[in-house]
Amino acid sequence: MWLTMRQKILEALYQNKGYISGETLSKNLGISRVAIWKHIQTLRKDGYVIESSARGYRLLSAPDLLLPEELPNLGMKVYHFKEVTSTMDIARKLAQKEKETIVIAETQTKGRGRLGRYWHSAKGGIYFSLILKPKISPLQAHLVNLMAGIAVAKAIRDLFNLKATLKWPNDVLVNERKVCGILAEMEAEADIVKFINLGIGINANNEISYYEKNAISLKEVLGKEISRKELFLQILKEIKKRKGLLGRPELIQEWKRFSSTFNYQVRIITIHGTIEGQPLDIDHDGALILRTREGDLKRIVAGDCVHLRKD
Amino acid sequence: MWLTMRQKILEALYQNKGYISGETLSKNLGISRVAIWKHIQTLRKDGYVIESSARGYRLLSAPDLLLPEELPNLGMKVYHFKEVTSTMDIARKLAQKEKETIVIAETQTKGRGRLGRYWHSAKGGIYFSLILKPKISPLQAHLVNLMAGIAVAKAIRDLFNLKATLKWPNDVLVNERKVCGILAEMEAEADIVKFINLGIGINANNEISYYEKNAISLKEVLGKEISRKELFLQILKEIKKRKGLLGRPELIQEWKRFSSTFNYQVRIITIHGTIEGQPLDIDHDGALILRTREGDLKRIVAGDCVHLRKD
Repeated sequence: MWLTMRQKILEALYQNKGYISGETLSKNLGISRVAIWKHIQTLRKDGYVIESSARGYRLLSAPDLLLPEELPNLGMKVYHFKEVTSTMDIARKLAQKEKETIVIAETQTKGRGRLGRYWHSAKGGIYFSLILKPKISPLQAHLVNLMAGIAVAKAIRDLFNLKATLKWPNDVLVNERKVCGILAEMEAEADIVKFINLGIGINANNEISYYEKNAISLKEVLGKEISRKELFLQILKEIKKRKGLLGRPELIQEWKRFSSTFNYQVRIITIHGTIEGQPLDIDHDGALILRTREGDLKRIVAGDCVHLRKD
Repeated sequence: MWLTMRQKILEALYQNKGYISGETLSKNLGISRVAIWKHIQTLRKDGYVIESSARGYRLLSAPDLLLPEELPNLGMKVYHFKEVTSTMDIARKLAQKEKETIVIAETQTKGRGRLGRYWHSAKGGIYFSLILKPKISPLQAHLVNLMAGIAVAKAIRDLFNLKATLKWPNDVLVNERKVCGILAEMEAEADIVKFINLGIGINANNEISYYEKNAISLKEVLGKEISRKELFLQILKEIKKRKGLLGRPELIQEWKRFSSTFNYQVRIITIHGTIEGQPLDIDHDGALILRTREGDLKRIVAGDCVHLRKD
């Protein structure tokens, strides 16, 4: 792998538990001591705490940023931004030419939710888009939403021992409040998906506004900050495990085990109208099968789901 | 409507059956006679035959180009290009911001068919993309292909009294050879289409290569050139009539009346494999219901269809 000078310096700092002199760095990397010093300054600006003394430089702590140089090799290109309008905007442009790619941002000024809604994206959250190129039909594309929900819930359960559950189709809840929003946008022809951009926003260490009654951050739940990097990597791992399962019954089965939606009467708001009833099942496409108040069976592909009273 | 100077001059030429003097034009339009003369030169370059004499200018004939100034008000923006890579490329960019829009090109250097295949786009054909923003689910998006097929076949039948038929899902055939290819690309979320770009390529007056055994041009069939403008406008009219019918049984019924696919044993090549059998029906999503050689019923959403022997 080709490393940038910045990455080489960071690697040297990580590998040396003690001090490493500017001279050694300068010799090994083939650049001047002044150039080394300039890189150190930039790293400090990004939040790396680097002690410098007569003995040289020493890394005391790294910032909890999702910088590519802080991540292991993920087998795909990683784009990192301090601030973007929305990682989905970037992903849409990249998807035309790139293979599977990750776009990460520390904050978003115009984070997007379903149907063009605003997704509050304060610092401390985890915001990324994954460009996926699965060989599936557009009819199966919705399954990516369910797959992502499972991956996030599983990662949160395993890392923090919290009972994360899924609200149909893809909200991840802790204590019945939303910790994660998922948005999938696809480009497709009649029978083949060209790409699906999967956007994931996680309330990790960000502050939740008093007015967002239905949201909660992991920091709030746990009473302490989490490692965003650890959660991010765990989620990617869980997604990777399930990418090949789109269209397979195992995925639907796993989703059902994670979901709390079947315990509630629900209200579903779709672009065609609102419907209430008892959720019975989800089918192979991830559509919800609902028995309405009137006793009819309805199949709903997507919509906003509100958990009403417990059954 | 705001007209360009070029459009104003053309309008004046069209409205005067006889000559109109440079001086009159200059006075009415408020530009110099030299400027008028420059516009006339540009129009001539574009194929307008304009006589000029001591009595003034007179329009003898207009080129058969699909120039916006040659079209009536279509109620949407029209972009016209002499040559593009593909009208679909342009449409994809425009669709992010524009309302429903038409992109026309006289030729394409990288015309696209289904699954990234090349669509030969020589001069004389009709090549355009229509940016549509219907409020439908991505599951219904495929219906746009069927709707476009009907519109093209209907326009060809009405204008030229030819028996244009449809081969599932959306090839328009005359004498069982292809006169029109249709490609739909969409961008969608789980439950709502953001836009569908409908690409239509018609073998109108273009030459068909000797090797394209399955293609034919309308010029070949009719033994004379057709008015591309007339056909283009007729197709738009037929599309407009049916835009509100996506998801309605009338559209499916009409498609069946136009189709010749049910008269044949067929081979369907999908991205998952090849299947042969007897087509029985298409369902409300436009999927083909096929009885295989083994007697199973299969539902196929999209694919390439080959008409084999007649039943």
